Amino acid sequence: MGVVVPLGEKNDGGRASLQPLLDLVAPDMERINETILSHAQSHVDMIPQLAGHLINSGGKRLRPMLTLATSRMFGYEGEHHIPLATAVEFMHTATLLHDDVVDESDWRRGKKAARLIWGNQASVLVGDYLLGQAFKMMVETGILEALRILSNAAAIIAEGEVLQLAAQNDVSTTEDAYMEVIDAKTAALFSAAAELGAVVAKRPREEQEALVSYGRNLGIAFQLVDDALDYAGESDKLGKATGDDFREGKITLPVVLSYRRGSGEERAFWKRVMEKGEQREGDLEQALEIMNRHDAITGTMERARHYGAIARDAMAWFPQSGPRDALMEAVDFCIARVS
Amino acid sequence: MGVVVPLGEKNDGGRASLQPLLDLVAPDMERINETILSHAQSHVDMIPQLAGHLINSGGKRLRPMLTLATSRMFGYEGEHHIPLATAVEFMHTATLLHDDVVDESDWRRGKKAARLIWGNQASVLVGDYLLGQAFKMMVETGILEALRILSNAAAIIAEGEVLQLAAQNDVSTTEDAYMEVIDAKTAALFSAAAELGAVVAKRPREEQEALVSYGRNLGIAFQLVDDALDYAGESDKLGKATGDDFREGKITLPVVLSYRRGSGEERAFWKRVMEKGEQREGDLEQALEIMNRHDAITGTMERARHYGAIARDAMAWFPQSGPRDALMEAVDFCIARVS
Repeated sequence: MGVVVPLGEKNDGGRASLQPLLDLVAPDMERINETILSHAQSHVDMIPQLAGHLINSGGKRLRPMLTLATSRMFGYEGEHHIPLATAVEFMHTATLLHDDVVDESDWRRGKKAARLIWGNQASVLVGDYLLGQAFKMMVETGILEALRILSNAAAIIAEGEVLQLAAQNDVSTTEDAYMEVIDAKTAALFSAAAELGAVVAKRPREEQEALVSYGRNLGIAFQLVDDALDYAGESDKLGKATGDDFREGKITLPVVLSYRRGSGEERAFWKRVMEKGEQREGDLEQALEIMNRHDAITGTMERARHYGAIARDAMAWFPQSGPRDALMEAVDFCIARVS
Repeated sequence: MGVVVPLGEKNDGGRASLQPLLDLVAPDMERINETILSHAQSHVDMIPQLAGHLINSGGKRLRPMLTLATSRMFGYEGEHHIPLATAVEFMHTATLLHDDVVDESDWRRGKKAARLIWGNQASVLVGDYLLGQAFKMMVETGILEALRILSNAAAIIAEGEVLQLAAQNDVSTTEDAYMEVIDAKTAALFSAAAELGAVVAKRPREEQEALVSYGRNLGIAFQLVDDALDYAGESDKLGKATGDDFREGKITLPVVLSYRRGSGEERAFWKRVMEKGEQREGDLEQALEIMNRHDAITGTMERARHYGAIARDAMAWFPQSGPRDALMEAVDFCIARVS
């Protein structure tokens, strides 16, 4: 298929790594795992079973990590970052469960989607259960500002999902309209997760806002890279088969760019495969050829780097420290991630 | 079909009415309607369309009424009961949307189910949106105790829904197991709605607990009457076709009682129509005959009156007042409702 995704690099030219961030949050992450397991318990067997399937399915838990790492950056010594970070992960997991039902997805992170094992019904209801648990955990912290941030994120995420559904399969979606969707459905939770660090540590508003900007732009970059990898990645490394978005007729930035930059004939191709859903043998290869011809994947990566740079600059505003540098390197890692 | 449901009566022997409660909350209810409309707004058209379909579909809004009426009973003069009662209604509406998807229902209150018009996907996502809005509204009041109550209710409701799904179609469900389901999926929100009145008015714990008991038992009675009416009601008055639960293979108390009280042959009938879902012409009539033979519907109504009596006694603990009496009469109305 021959599409080369340029890797992100650290400022010193070395390969970006998530390791400094992982090391920073490792002790807290243990506690998050315990909190996740204890709050996904229920005497209704299906709940821990289904939740466990998703929770143990190898996600990086990047979102809760943001809450933990930003708390650490401020030297926060309290306990509230643990339930809040867990609530963030539960909100994310609930969204995945509902997304799989809405998208009729068969796979999630290289594992069979929960809906295929337990059914759509259980996926909807266990998603609701996890949202309820998330909400309870936040409330128990008693931090109203954290509640404001997370309830706001929940409403924005859901609105973004509906927006995406309404624009579904429309290949003439503009780049701006697409950005609006991912700003809501992906970036809002990254932003909230990062902001919470400043909230628990009671930092001034300008620091809180810097974290909002960091999280939001990192989230956008992360989603765009995800979109690019769906066409350019290696299936086995990603836990996601190349071409999943294509097969589901999901409009992402590589398609938006290909359609806008393409010829009349190419546009007819996109309309057939994405809007009408008429896909034949060889269509994915042709899609990749068209994308290559118009630099749609490298274009998507360029956009991702743009947002990544904004995230780095938002973080650069803080005084140099180990945690700050780990958070900055995480941006490069997200852009470079192929493993 | 010849099943007679005994009507509830007021203590003075007259017909119970919801009118005193409706009159009590009428001015606040106007504000609830405005709050509902303004919070179901979005530039994503599908959200106000779908939410409007459900919100305007003629529900009695009994749950928010409980918050309003209990607040009034304490002479509460503030503003917080409005967003809290609206949040209760949004939580309820979100549950209905998700329920219809899970149950594959075609009708809701005599109108086409939203999922048939906008699709299952939109129903899942707009449900999430309404939950997010509910959460935002509660957080804006800044009353942590109210947040604790409603987040707890959200988790319990979702757990009850999963429990119901797991027990689905099992005709040998015990009465206790069935009661556990409705205690969670229906009574928890009634209970929370009533309790909020004591919370906004900052009443002592014992009064709060009396309202928990009132709401919970009213909710159970309400659900049991609903179950009975599905077999004994008149379709056009209910906005729900007689036999809906039967056709969907939903196990409710009339079925639980009929199965437990029935002969081997009758049990085989229930297994065929409810568990295997093999329904033929005349099966609903036969189901009603079996129910009649074993007093399963009158038995369900007896249980409902038991819980109704507990609700009345919980309320009787408060000094006599117009609002208190309206709340007590509402119990009788719920048991008597055929209109």
